[in-house]
Amino acid sequence: MHYLVEQFLSICDSIHFVFFPPVSFMDAIEFARKGKFDAYVAVGGGSVMDTCKAANLYASSPESDLLDFVNAPIGKGKPVTVPLNPLIAVPTTSGTGSETTGIAIFDYEELNAKTGIASRAIKPTLGLIDPLHTLHMPERVIANSGFDVLCHSLESYTALPYHMRSPCPTNPIERPTYQGSNPISDVWAKHALRIVAKYLKRAVKNPDDREARFSMHLASSFAGIGFGNAGVHLCHGMSYPISGLVKTYRAKDYNVEHPIVPHGLSVVLTSPAVFSFTASMCPERHLEAAEILGADIRTAKIKDAGLVLADTLRKFLFDLNVDDGLSAVGYTTADIPALVKGTLPQERVTKLSPRSHSEDELSCLFEASMKLY
Amino acid sequence: MHYLVEQFLSICDSIHFVFFPPVSFMDAIEFARKGKFDAYVAVGGGSVMDTCKAANLYASSPESDLLDFVNAPIGKGKPVTVPLNPLIAVPTTSGTGSETTGIAIFDYEELNAKTGIASRAIKPTLGLIDPLHTLHMPERVIANSGFDVLCHSLESYTALPYHMRSPCPTNPIERPTYQGSNPISDVWAKHALRIVAKYLKRAVKNPDDREARFSMHLASSFAGIGFGNAGVHLCHGMSYPISGLVKTYRAKDYNVEHPIVPHGLSVVLTSPAVFSFTASMCPERHLEAAEILGADIRTAKIKDAGLVLADTLRKFLFDLNVDDGLSAVGYTTADIPALVKGTLPQERVTKLSPRSHSEDELSCLFEASMKLY
Repeated sequence: MHYLVEQFLSICDSIHFVFFPPVSFMDAIEFARKGKFDAYVAVGGGSVMDTCKAANLYASSPESDLLDFVNAPIGKGKPVTVPLNPLIAVPTTSGTGSETTGIAIFDYEELNAKTGIASRAIKPTLGLIDPLHTLHMPERVIANSGFDVLCHSLESYTALPYHMRSPCPTNPIERPTYQGSNPISDVWAKHALRIVAKYLKRAVKNPDDREARFSMHLASSFAGIGFGNAGVHLCHGMSYPISGLVKTYRAKDYNVEHPIVPHGLSVVLTSPAVFSFTASMCPERHLEAAEILGADIRTAKIKDAGLVLADTLRKFLFDLNVDDGLSAVGYTTADIPALVKGTLPQERVTKLSPRSHSEDELSCLFEASMKLY
Repeated sequence: MHYLVEQFLSICDSIHFVFFPPVSFMDAIEFARKGKFDAYVAVGGGSVMDTCKAANLYASSPESDLLDFVNAPIGKGKPVTVPLNPLIAVPTTSGTGSETTGIAIFDYEELNAKTGIASRAIKPTLGLIDPLHTLHMPERVIANSGFDVLCHSLESYTALPYHMRSPCPTNPIERPTYQGSNPISDVWAKHALRIVAKYLKRAVKNPDDREARFSMHLASSFAGIGFGNAGVHLCHGMSYPISGLVKTYRAKDYNVEHPIVPHGLSVVLTSPAVFSFTASMCPERHLEAAEILGADIRTAKIKDAGLVLADTLRKFLFDLNVDDGLSAVGYTTADIPALVKGTLPQERVTKLSPRSHSEDELSCLFEASMKLY
């Protein structure tokens, strides 16, 4: 057992441990409220850690309704003022970065879309980044979780800069969790992107390449530190309805009883279209990202930054056997209005896009993502 | 006035402000003990911030002797257990990174050498990284403080890895402030080195290049976050006697009444010799650093990593008009025994060298640093 978990157990041996496999936010919250636990250990991927964050939050604030802390406009977006109990997060996938963030995402079934809670108060007390916990991941889980890291890096590096976000708070301490790109988040985003460029293909193609898998596990946390204080934008905002409205697509290597478009896949499928669209607002950053991902940009024109990054991403995704666009995961042009409608409430992230966008432009981005190659 | 300083003043308008220009650690400590201040604001370079850290520490522990908290073997190296008052650090040079670290360095006149205090407890509460504060720096101050950033990055990136440092603590929380290189400090070291490679020459050659000066100010803090938890090694360990034993050398652009080898200069003069010596322990990192600093390493052999980095550094320093080695700042071969003797007590940093070293080897490093070009 990991040294720190052992230590943790040894200092709290008077505490009764209860194991709870997460089913839904509501079940976990009810379970936590009844159990009145002193501390939480979340062992799993993003859903598990996010569910545990929510259980901790609502058990610490027993009178609150679910929507109280959920992001506006779906929820009331109230600030968290109660103290929470310690939460130790142990990620077993290499993508979410949830162990480093104050974000908890869930499927709000009434709207068929994902939404979330964002508050520094729910950030785990400690994260155990041990790559040995990820050796069970099958090939597509490595790939899809890696795409989440890729998009965390690219989106946080190209997000609206923190000083251009409105409304501008009167005191810097009041900046939201997702404050926009900034010199600190840039460090983490670029470093994580370099690791993805060097190791993701190796990790996917050879499960025994431990250096690659270990590096991707660190990259997942590093990208988390970056996007956890900068934010993400359109790929993530548009991914929530792509996952939420899934019809019959069942991703390979996911051992679940229901149709699923895995989070990382739903995020990455729109990336070529999104970065073609956003590049005009910060073309240097788009070109720099393309270069890190292997493009030769010596003769590239700044006005082609979006196309260069989009082409680089298409090649990267093709090499990794990614399904050929939204059409390959079951969507047709007829679904676009519903996908746009599901994106509109994701303001928490979409307003961090460096380029503002109309509903028509969102439609075009979904349309352009129907086929990739 | 900076927004945050203004805010700070507005929330504590009942506090009496006393301005104290630092003279020595002892004067500052005495002044702080008498004044019983509630908070400190340090505005200046590394000496000013370090003096303020010491004043805060010893005023919070009024019964302690100076040597109580000073690093062993010179001092007793006691752990800090008292709570300190808030300290806001406002750096006005771009080199020290002291605003991010729990380190305070001073000249211990009885030994003619620099030594220090290292404890997370003395780390400033808040740092204000505002490049407008650095626009007064003359050309040599920009260059020499930049060399400090260069060596902070190179030394922390090549320092002994944290898991190879002995004694290995039984609990990770007991690792010292300088714990050795690790995946987090590597991120900061490499990022700062990239900024130095891109901007230091521009900042030195054109004082009006604000992008370059602003970037170097951030690089200083970034490198500080890196070395502040990884540590530095031989360049810094050997620099303390080089500064402490100064004879008549008076650095250009330093407006002081006494001979001085500025810290950044005393650190960088041994860097070609030091990295030639350490490269065999982690040649890939030495080659990677040379590449970031502009070397073409495509045909470089791994066994030549030290020579490649040393040559890259020599060229870099020559382009920046650095004095030609220790001989140019007043030292001769006859001084080497004293320089070695002054290095021996710097175990806090020298034991982080990736390659262990005898007194003879230290002599050779000083000898090889007499002339650079």
